Amino acid sequence: MSKPSIPQGTRDFSPAEVRKRQYIFDTLRVIFELYGFQPLETPSMENLVTLTGKYGEEGDRLIFKILNNGLHEKKEEDKAKLHAEWEKVVSKPYSTPVVTERALRYDLTIPFARYVVMHQNELAFPFRRYQMQPVWRADRPQKGRYREFWQCDADVVGSTSLINEAELLCIYQSAFAKLQVPVTIKINSRKLLAALAELCGMPDKMMDITIAMDKLDKIGWIGVANELKERGISDDGIWQIEKVINVKGTNDEQLTAFSDIMQHSAAGMEGINELSKTLAYYKTLFPEASSVVVDISLARGLNYYTGVIVEVVCAHPDVKMGSIGGGGRYDDLTGLFGLKGLSGVGVSFGIDRIYDVMDELKVFPEQLAEGTQAMLVNFGGENETYALQLLTQLRNAGIAAEIYPDAAKFDKQMKYANKRGIVYVLLPGDEERTKGMVSVKNFVTGEQKMVSVAEAVALLKG
Amino acid sequence: MSKPSIPQGTRDFSPAEVRKRQYIFDTLRVIFELYGFQPLETPSMENLVTLTGKYGEEGDRLIFKILNNGLHEKKEEDKAKLHAEWEKVVSKPYSTPVVTERALRYDLTIPFARYVVMHQNELAFPFRRYQMQPVWRADRPQKGRYREFWQCDADVVGSTSLINEAELLCIYQSAFAKLQVPVTIKINSRKLLAALAELCGMPDKMMDITIAMDKLDKIGWIGVANELKERGISDDGIWQIEKVINVKGTNDEQLTAFSDIMQHSAAGMEGINELSKTLAYYKTLFPEASSVVVDISLARGLNYYTGVIVEVVCAHPDVKMGSIGGGGRYDDLTGLFGLKGLSGVGVSFGIDRIYDVMDELKVFPEQLAEGTQAMLVNFGGENETYALQLLTQLRNAGIAAEIYPDAAKFDKQMKYANKRGIVYVLLPGDEERTKGMVSVKNFVTGEQKMVSVAEAVALLKG
Repeated sequence: MSKPSIPQGTRDFSPAEVRKRQYIFDTLRVIFELYGFQPLETPSMENLVTLTGKYGEEGDRLIFKILNNGLHEKKEEDKAKLHAEWEKVVSKPYSTPVVTERALRYDLTIPFARYVVMHQNELAFPFRRYQMQPVWRADRPQKGRYREFWQCDADVVGSTSLINEAELLCIYQSAFAKLQVPVTIKINSRKLLAALAELCGMPDKMMDITIAMDKLDKIGWIGVANELKERGISDDGIWQIEKVINVKGTNDEQLTAFSDIMQHSAAGMEGINELSKTLAYYKTLFPEASSVVVDISLARGLNYYTGVIVEVVCAHPDVKMGSIGGGGRYDDLTGLFGLKGLSGVGVSFGIDRIYDVMDELKVFPEQLAEGTQAMLVNFGGENETYALQLLTQLRNAGIAAEIYPDAAKFDKQMKYANKRGIVYVLLPGDEERTKGMVSVKNFVTGEQKMVSVAEAVALLKG
Repeated sequence: MSKPSIPQGTRDFSPAEVRKRQYIFDTLRVIFELYGFQPLETPSMENLVTLTGKYGEEGDRLIFKILNNGLHEKKEEDKAKLHAEWEKVVSKPYSTPVVTERALRYDLTIPFARYVVMHQNELAFPFRRYQMQPVWRADRPQKGRYREFWQCDADVVGSTSLINEAELLCIYQSAFAKLQVPVTIKINSRKLLAALAELCGMPDKMMDITIAMDKLDKIGWIGVANELKERGISDDGIWQIEKVINVKGTNDEQLTAFSDIMQHSAAGMEGINELSKTLAYYKTLFPEASSVVVDISLARGLNYYTGVIVEVVCAHPDVKMGSIGGGGRYDDLTGLFGLKGLSGVGVSFGIDRIYDVMDELKVFPEQLAEGTQAMLVNFGGENETYALQLLTQLRNAGIAAEIYPDAAKFDKQMKYANKRGIVYVLLPGDEERTKGMVSVKNFVTGEQKMVSVAEAVALLKG
């Protein structure tokens, strides 16, 4: 039999990894709840028609589909119904036999929209939810890119107030502070990008400009300028864009400069107004020094954003990592499922990347790795019975403890404790038992002493 | 567009449901850690060859398989290798084109065995792990049976000590006590079932006897006797089994009676010895009154069990629910993947059923449902700014709070708070702002009073 393996792009999480990941999830959960966001979980599988056509052609190809095998065969009329529904969504005839009707969740946004539409009558709007679950994409695996990975989203739907944007900035600010990851939170408005296209005299080229600008960090201004040219932007347009990109200064200074440059663009002035208001709300909520920085070159790939957009990058000089979070305002997401006019705004945390950054910066709390705090050596016979009684006393005191289950050779038991990284080993031998005490050995310092049970408990709890 | 829906047998979990489920998971996690068990998570997808042939023919049919579409085409030599591997496992030629190579996790046991074999050199044995993750089965959905559901397992591999069995009993005992679910923990040994077959003079009929006995709760003794007859057990054999089933009394009394009846069966005496020792260890670890009861009719369906087996049922008279947990000793699980001679023992918690029982018994902590503790009414303008400042003060004090994001009509805001079930509504109007105070309205009692911010914080924290 060949050695078993796991599918490419998937991962086993070892005990130490699970504990660290759990720490991130728990930290975020506490903050979301503090801000009045409510948890939601949706199924791993969605109907294929729910997902198809929502992520672009490339996205459709990357959806993991589930075979119908093992399920009871559909009735003919149900098949016809399914085909009709399919054609409505995909606007192509459904010619192949039905081999798949379900697919794995591709992101948390579409299932959220689907949930809101299905439960619109029960929900109180604005509805604020957070969701932390895995998603699956049949992408080519590479370093830091997995076929199963975790998303963590917080969204508010049903309110256009910019207080929502400001609160999401606060969530970013306090979450990364709590996780001890220094960050820069970039903010922009899609409306400023629209205004840029107007400035160039090419309002229909907004997406081209957005796509090119999005690469500024990667390929620099010369690269972007070349791409803009290739995408048909005039030299004068490129010059206008350069002028805007070169604006530097504080957030206020930048916004003042932009309102000068964009004074004739309605979209531009609206975008500037949005940013000013959001930053003012944010300042009221979070008066301390903050990491939020206006960045006109910020574009964000997804084209459903319509207003303020944000992106988080790690600000530590030693960390080379792309965005570890992002989001923005979108209009009419639920319109995809027939519920029109519900504006939303949301942010996302890149769990896997945040994990990697925290590992690199060594900011996970030390005690996380520990697990078991104390192991009792098993000397067999009456000493085993005594050890079991001690074990219960330790656990009753809230100390994570275990006994080596067999009266194996002392060396074997010590090797186990060492490999597990257990710091305290308790030795309940004949002398200890008859005296009602226990010897405690610290594996790190090598120190060993015989103490009362109460003293051992106090030592382990301290 | 037709109303969106989710696949049959799957579920959305609303905020209130997520919080309650989280409470169960958190409670179990704390207990597992206290007992020195370590968390493990495996991928949702496994290679199909890992799963195929492990769950019987019926199980194989219920595995959800994932289409290869969206993935890059395999090279010819890789295909040949895959086919060869397949044939080794399934012992049938692989004749169909490769449309699926991956499948969704069917349980947590096989992935655990696969993990142990893959990581045998890094792990310290005995390895104690717990795992709480969803699994998927293409079963026909019905009340309480889902296609996506959660399993929660705790296992020890690499030790034959009965201390492990006793510790798992302690985990059951303390977990259900903590969750406030009254239970009976039934215990038996597969060896006693083997001895029963010997008593009947038909040692090869052990599985038939096991399968029939397993139905005692459902169809009663007459039903079981009929099934035994159909399965070819002699009348004398059935009479022997009846004699054993009719043994009543305390655990000690039962074991004494069994050792009398089974004195000539080596397997029987071994089983009795296992149960006595396990119960003695358990008594040492957990001297208080316990819910563990010897039940010779307990069989447990899975045929990989070889020693002690356990099952948990709710003991509350009003709750009609099957088993909410179970497990046992198995030999050589990892042998499936080439690592021989590793004995293991484990227990499982039926999360969905435990949830339903707790809901029925109303034992979820009341404050779980709450989420947001206070909502600030938004009166707009300067009052909005004042409200935002108060909001930050509340959150800094650890109070989950939110502001209605728009200065909407008062009634609309109150309706929202009511629908959300928020108990305290804070009203920062002109008077409150100029005085630096805030009015607090209790939605349950209707009481309203103006207090200082410090008093409001104290009230909400109390």
